[in-house]
Amino acid sequence: MTRTQAKKLAEELVGRMTVEEKASQLRFDAPAIERLGIPAYNWWNEALHGLARGGTATSFPQAIGMAAMFDDALLRKIAEAISYEARAKYNALSAEGDRDIYHGLTVWSPNVNIFRDPRWGRGHETYGEDPYLTARLGTAFVRGLQGEGETLRTAACAKHYAVHSGPEALRHCFNAVASPKDMEETYLPAFRALVQDAGVEAVMGAYNRTNGEPCCANGELMSRLRGDWGFQGHFVSDCWAIRDFHENHKITASPVESVTKALKAGCDLNCGCTYQHIMRAFELGFVTEEDISRCAVRLFTTRYLLGLLGEGGSEYDTVPYDRIECEAHLALAHQAALRSCVLLKNDGLLPLDPESGETIGVIGPNANSRSALIGNYHGTASRYITVLEGIQDLTAGKCRVLYSEGCALSADRVEPLAQPGDRLAEAVAVAKNSDKVILVLGLDETLEGEEGDTGNNYFSGDKADLLLPPSQRLLLERVLQAGKPTVVVLMVGSAIDVDLAQRHANAILLSWYPGAGGGKAVAELLFGREAPSGKLPVTFYRNEALSEMPDFTDYSLCNRTYRYYQGKALYPFGFGLSYGRCVLRDLKTDGVCARVCVRNDSDRELEEVIQLYLHDERSPFAPPNPVLCGFHRLRLTPGEERIVTVDIDPNAFTVVDDAGRRVPGSGSWLLYAGFGAPDERSRELRGDDGLSVRIASP
Amino acid sequence: MTRTQAKKLAEELVGRMTVEEKASQLRFDAPAIERLGIPAYNWWNEALHGLARGGTATSFPQAIGMAAMFDDALLRKIAEAISYEARAKYNALSAEGDRDIYHGLTVWSPNVNIFRDPRWGRGHETYGEDPYLTARLGTAFVRGLQGEGETLRTAACAKHYAVHSGPEALRHCFNAVASPKDMEETYLPAFRALVQDAGVEAVMGAYNRTNGEPCCANGELMSRLRGDWGFQGHFVSDCWAIRDFHENHKITASPVESVTKALKAGCDLNCGCTYQHIMRAFELGFVTEEDISRCAVRLFTTRYLLGLLGEGGSEYDTVPYDRIECEAHLALAHQAALRSCVLLKNDGLLPLDPESGETIGVIGPNANSRSALIGNYHGTASRYITVLEGIQDLTAGKCRVLYSEGCALSADRVEPLAQPGDRLAEAVAVAKNSDKVILVLGLDETLEGEEGDTGNNYFSGDKADLLLPPSQRLLLERVLQAGKPTVVVLMVGSAIDVDLAQRHANAILLSWYPGAGGGKAVAELLFGREAPSGKLPVTFYRNEALSEMPDFTDYSLCNRTYRYYQGKALYPFGFGLSYGRCVLRDLKTDGVCARVCVRNDSDRELEEVIQLYLHDERSPFAPPNPVLCGFHRLRLTPGEERIVTVDIDPNAFTVVDDAGRRVPGSGSWLLYAGFGAPDERSRELRGDDGLSVRIASP
Repeated sequence: MTRTQAKKLAEELVGRMTVEEKASQLRFDAPAIERLGIPAYNWWNEALHGLARGGTATSFPQAIGMAAMFDDALLRKIAEAISYEARAKYNALSAEGDRDIYHGLTVWSPNVNIFRDPRWGRGHETYGEDPYLTARLGTAFVRGLQGEGETLRTAACAKHYAVHSGPEALRHCFNAVASPKDMEETYLPAFRALVQDAGVEAVMGAYNRTNGEPCCANGELMSRLRGDWGFQGHFVSDCWAIRDFHENHKITASPVESVTKALKAGCDLNCGCTYQHIMRAFELGFVTEEDISRCAVRLFTTRYLLGLLGEGGSEYDTVPYDRIECEAHLALAHQAALRSCVLLKNDGLLPLDPESGETIGVIGPNANSRSALIGNYHGTASRYITVLEGIQDLTAGKCRVLYSEGCALSADRVEPLAQPGDRLAEAVAVAKNSDKVILVLGLDETLEGEEGDTGNNYFSGDKADLLLPPSQRLLLERVLQAGKPTVVVLMVGSAIDVDLAQRHANAILLSWYPGAGGGKAVAELLFGREAPSGKLPVTFYRNEALSEMPDFTDYSLCNRTYRYYQGKALYPFGFGLSYGRCVLRDLKTDGVCARVCVRNDSDRELEEVIQLYLHDERSPFAPPNPVLCGFHRLRLTPGEERIVTVDIDPNAFTVVDDAGRRVPGSGSWLLYAGFGAPDERSRELRGDDGLSVRIASP
Repeated sequence: MTRTQAKKLAEELVGRMTVEEKASQLRFDAPAIERLGIPAYNWWNEALHGLARGGTATSFPQAIGMAAMFDDALLRKIAEAISYEARAKYNALSAEGDRDIYHGLTVWSPNVNIFRDPRWGRGHETYGEDPYLTARLGTAFVRGLQGEGETLRTAACAKHYAVHSGPEALRHCFNAVASPKDMEETYLPAFRALVQDAGVEAVMGAYNRTNGEPCCANGELMSRLRGDWGFQGHFVSDCWAIRDFHENHKITASPVESVTKALKAGCDLNCGCTYQHIMRAFELGFVTEEDISRCAVRLFTTRYLLGLLGEGGSEYDTVPYDRIECEAHLALAHQAALRSCVLLKNDGLLPLDPESGETIGVIGPNANSRSALIGNYHGTASRYITVLEGIQDLTAGKCRVLYSEGCALSADRVEPLAQPGDRLAEAVAVAKNSDKVILVLGLDETLEGEEGDTGNNYFSGDKADLLLPPSQRLLLERVLQAGKPTVVVLMVGSAIDVDLAQRHANAILLSWYPGAGGGKAVAELLFGREAPSGKLPVTFYRNEALSEMPDFTDYSLCNRTYRYYQGKALYPFGFGLSYGRCVLRDLKTDGVCARVCVRNDSDRELEEVIQLYLHDERSPFAPPNPVLCGFHRLRLTPGEERIVTVDIDPNAFTVVDDAGRRVPGSGSWLLYAGFGAPDERSRELRGDDGLSVRIASP
C-alpha cells in the first residue's frame, strides 16, 4: 500500500473520531476505540540487536559489534530476521490478547547517534564515530526492518534526533551546542540518509536540548526533517522527554505548556504520560483539533502501512511462531559474531591449537558471564554460550580447561566477608597450572549503559575514564606476572585503554558484546576455525587522550574521532588484524568508484575489509585526516586474487564550510585504499599494506 | 597421628605462648605468631555440597537432594572428593600466601539439624526430617571429609548443636523449648552419632537458646557432648552468635560477660569478633589463663591432626590443583544428581522419546536458571548446565526446543514497565506450538535460605507457606489450560504443595537443587536415559497441613514429620516412583537384619531403595507411625532377582519415655519392607508393593 493510500484511510478513520479519541491515540500506550473497531496498541518496542525486553528472541552482537563487521549486506539480513521475529511474536501474542509494551511492530531502532566521546555509556548502541559508516549501516538496518513488501514488515525509528551522545547524567536538562559545520558534517548525515535513502517510518527526538531548543520540539531540527528532507512518517518523543520540558529544561511552566510546545512543533507520539494533558491544552485553546488530527493521521498512516488496520491485513500475518530463533536466524547471529570480533594484537600465539592436549586456563569475571554477551537493550535467549563454554565445547576431550573467576567485575572482592582480591590467588594458581591462559576481561550493561529514570530501569551510565575497573587491572597484572602465554579477550562496547595488555600479553581479541551465543564464535576465532576480520568503528584512545579533548559536555569535534584526532591512538579507527595477510595492488579510480586488485597471500581462507579514505589536501574546511568514503568486505581462498570495485561516497568530494554549507572540495584529493586507515599508527600496527592514488577534480 | 600425640604437641606449643597469644588464637581469623613460626589461619570454610564461597569447585546436589539418594556409600565418596578439593585448593592458595576465609581445611559441614518444619529456609541444607536417616548420612559425610589417613584430610563440623530449625527471623533471640523425649528421640541422635561413630572433629553451637540457655554456652548440651559422648574435638560458635548473648538474648550485659560465659562453657573458637574481648575478661579475673589455654590446646590439636603444623606435614600436602573439578568428581556429581531426583507423578508420559522429532516447549523461570541449580552455600562451577540446556543438548538435531521464561521467579512481571504477567502470552504460545511441554518451576536461594546478618550476606529466610509464588501458580494454570501433555519439573529444597500439578499435569519430577551440572541429569531422566530412583527425605504436606501443626516456634514433634503426622500427605516421606516396577517377596528377619528377595519386573535397568520401617505396636512411648530403621539402594538389570540383607537400626527396638530415657520397646513389633513407607498414601500413590513380618522380642 502506498503512503498516499494509507494516509487517505487514516484521514477517514481519524475523521470519525471525537477529539478525545484522537488525543488518546497520541500516547505510546494507545487505548482501544471499540466503536470504531480499533484495538489497543502499544507503540514501544526495541530491536537494537534483536528484539529486546519482550521475551525470547535471537540475540545478535550489540550494535557497535555489528558496525565492526563493516558489512551492510549482512546487517540488512539481520534486520530482516529481526523483523520476521517481530511479526511472529506479534501474531502469536496478539492472538492471546497481549498487546502490551515490547510486543508491537514499531521498533525504536536503530540508534544512529555519533559515538562522539568514548565515555558515553550508550555508545555501544551506535554504529560508531563515523558519519558515513553510520549512515550506510543505519540505512541497511532500516531497509531490513521495513522490507519491500505490500506492507511494512516493521516500522523502524531513527534515534535520537539529533546531537545526542551524553553525558547520560545530564540528558534531561542538558543543552548540546553544535556548530553549523559539525551539524551538517557529523551529526545529521545519518538521519538524512535514513529519511531520504531508507524511508525510515519514524524519528525519535532526543532528551536534551540542541542549540537551545528541546529536541522533541526543536524548530530548526523539525524544519530540516519535514521541510528540507521531506520526512513523511511520525515523530515520537524519547520516553518522558516531554515532561523534561517543564521539570528539567524549565523551558515551559506546566505539562499543558509542554504538550502545546511539542504538539505544535510536530511531535506526534508521546512516550511518557504528558500527552494525557492534551485535552486540557485543547480546552484552554492552546492547541487546535487540527493540531491533534495531524498527529493522529500520521500515526494511523503508520498503522495502515503496517497492515494493522483495515481490510487487507498484512502479508506477514501468517509468519509462524517458530520463526523466532529458527536455525537460519541463529546462523546469522553466529556469522555476525565471527565478523564483529577485532584482533588487536597477536605475536603469533593465536590461533591456538585445539588438538594440543594442553591445559588451558580460562580466567576473568567475563569468562563465564551471560551478561557480558548481550550488552544492553537485549532480549532473552534460549541458549547462552559464554566464552568459557565456547572454549570448553570446542576443546572437549582434547584439552583440560581450568577456570577462575579471578575477580568481581568491579567490586574489590567476590565474597563480602573476604579480603580484597579474594580470587587472585586462585587465578594465579590456575595460570601456573596451565600451558596457555585466556584472560576474559571487560564490562557489561551494569558498567556502561543508559542513565536510569522512569523510562529506563536499567541504570548504569557513562564511564568515568577509559580504564578497566581496578579489580580487573590488578587481575591482569597478577596473571601476566605468572608468565604463561596469555591471550586477553576484551568484552566491551567502547574504547578501553588496555596498554598493559598491549605491552605484555601475547594477543588481544576484542569481542564487543557478541550476542547470546557469542562465546562459540570467540572460541572458533581463538582456535583458528575462522580468522578474525572485524575493524574498529571507533578510535581506541589512550586514557591520557581524554585530557587533550574538549570537555564531555562540549560537542565540538575538535580533536575527537579519527577525522579530527591529532594524537596517537592505542588502536585507530578501521584497525583490525587477521591470521594471514592480504595485499593490494593496481589501485585505480574514476572518482565514482575505485578499482583495486586484492590477493590472499596466506595459506588459509580469510575475510578482509577494503577501506577507502579520501583526503582533501587543500580545502581549509576539510578535516585534518583522511575520511572514510567507501568499504567492501570480501572472502578470499588461499592464494586467491580478485579485482574489486568499491563505490566512493559522492559527499567525500565536498566539504562543509563554517556556515554549515556543503560546498565542493578543493579538487586536489588523495584516495587511499587499505585494510585500515592511512594513519601512522595503523601502519605501525599492521605494517604498511595500503595504496594511494591522486584524484583530480572528477 | 593419634589425638594423644597431637594434643601433646599442642600443649607444648600453647605452653610457649603468652596469654595474649593464646587468646588471639581463639578467633576464627587467627593471626600468625611469627616468633613461634605459626602462620595465620582462617578457620571458616564451608562444604555443604561442595566447597563453597572459595572459588571454583565441583558442585554437588544440595544436601536435601543428596539425602534423597538414600545412599550413604555414594555420599561418603562425595565427601571424599570435596575433601581432596579442599586440600588441592589449600595447597595451591596457601602457596600464593592466601590464607583467607573459605580457603582452609576446617569445613563447617554437615548440617544435621532435623528438618522439623517445612517452612524453614535452611531446611535444604539438611538431610531431612528423620533422625536415623540424618545420622547415617551425616556419619558417612563426616567419614568422607576426614578420611582414615595419618592426618585428617579435612576437619568436619556437626552443626548446629542443637535443636535449631527456625524461624530464621528469630534465630538471634529465640529460645527453642524441646521436651526430654524429643531431645533424645529426634534432635540429638545425629549429633551423638557424628561424635561417637564418625569422630567428628568439630561441633558448632546454634544461634538460638535451647531450653533457656544459649547453645554456644549451654550447660546441658555441653555436658552431654563432652561428658556423656566423650567429644574430644573443638567447639565453635555460629557466626556472631556470642555477640547475641548480650545484644539479642540479653542473658549477659556486655561482651566481656559473653566471652566469659562462652569460654567457661567450653566454646573454644569464636566465629565473630566477641573473643577480641578475652584479654579484658582475663584482666578482670573473669576467666583464667587455664580457661584460655584449654581452648587453645583443643584448637591446635586440630591443626596438628590436620598436619598444618610441626615436622611431618600431611600426606595430602601433594594433592595437585587439578584435582579440583576433575573428571572423577564431576562424574560423582552427575551420578548424585541422577539418584537424587524424585519422580512424584507419572501417568505414562515419561520417559519422553528423544527421537520423536517433536517440538518440545520448555517453559518457566527456573528452566534456564543457574541459581536454581545450586541452592545456597555454593561454590563457583566452571560449567552450569540448566534444565533447558540439558534438554537442548540431549535432543540436539532431533527435536526443536522452544523456550519461554514464562514469568519472574516471584515478581508479578519480568519487565518493570510492562503489565503483570508479561510473559504469560508467550508461554501459552510456546505451549500451543509444542507437542510436549516441560514446565520448570520452583524456588532458589533468594526465596528459601538463611536470614541475613553480619555473618551472612545471602539474605532470604523462611517460606511463608508451602505454595509456589503467585506468578508461578498463574503460569502453571495458564500452561495447563493450553492442554498439551505437560511435565512439571520442580526445583525446590523443601516441601511445596503442587496439588494443581498433581491433579492436572501428566508427570512431576522433583529435582531439588541438583548441582551446577544438574540439568544434564534431569534431561537424562526425562528422556529415559536413566530411571528416577530418589525418595523423599521429608514429607510433602498439603499447604492446609500448616494449620494442623504446632506453631513454627513450637519444637514439639506433635503432628510433625512422618513419624508423628496424622494427616494425609500430598507425598509421604520415603516416596518416589520409577519407570518400572520391582517386587519384593520372602521377607525374613532375625531382629538384627532383614532378608528379602527383590526382583526387577520391568524390561529396563532400575535402581530402587528398599526401606525398612518398624512399628512398636504396644509401647505407649512409640511414635504413632512406623519408623525408618534401615535402607539399601540397589541396581537391578531387567528381570534380575536378588536376595538382599538390610541391617536394622538397633535403636529401633527401643523407645524414649517422657523423661527422655531410652528404654526397651514393647517386644511386639511389626517390620515393614518396601520401596516406600507403609502408610496409606504411599500405597495409594505406588500401589501396594510392601511386605511386613511380625517380630517377637529379639
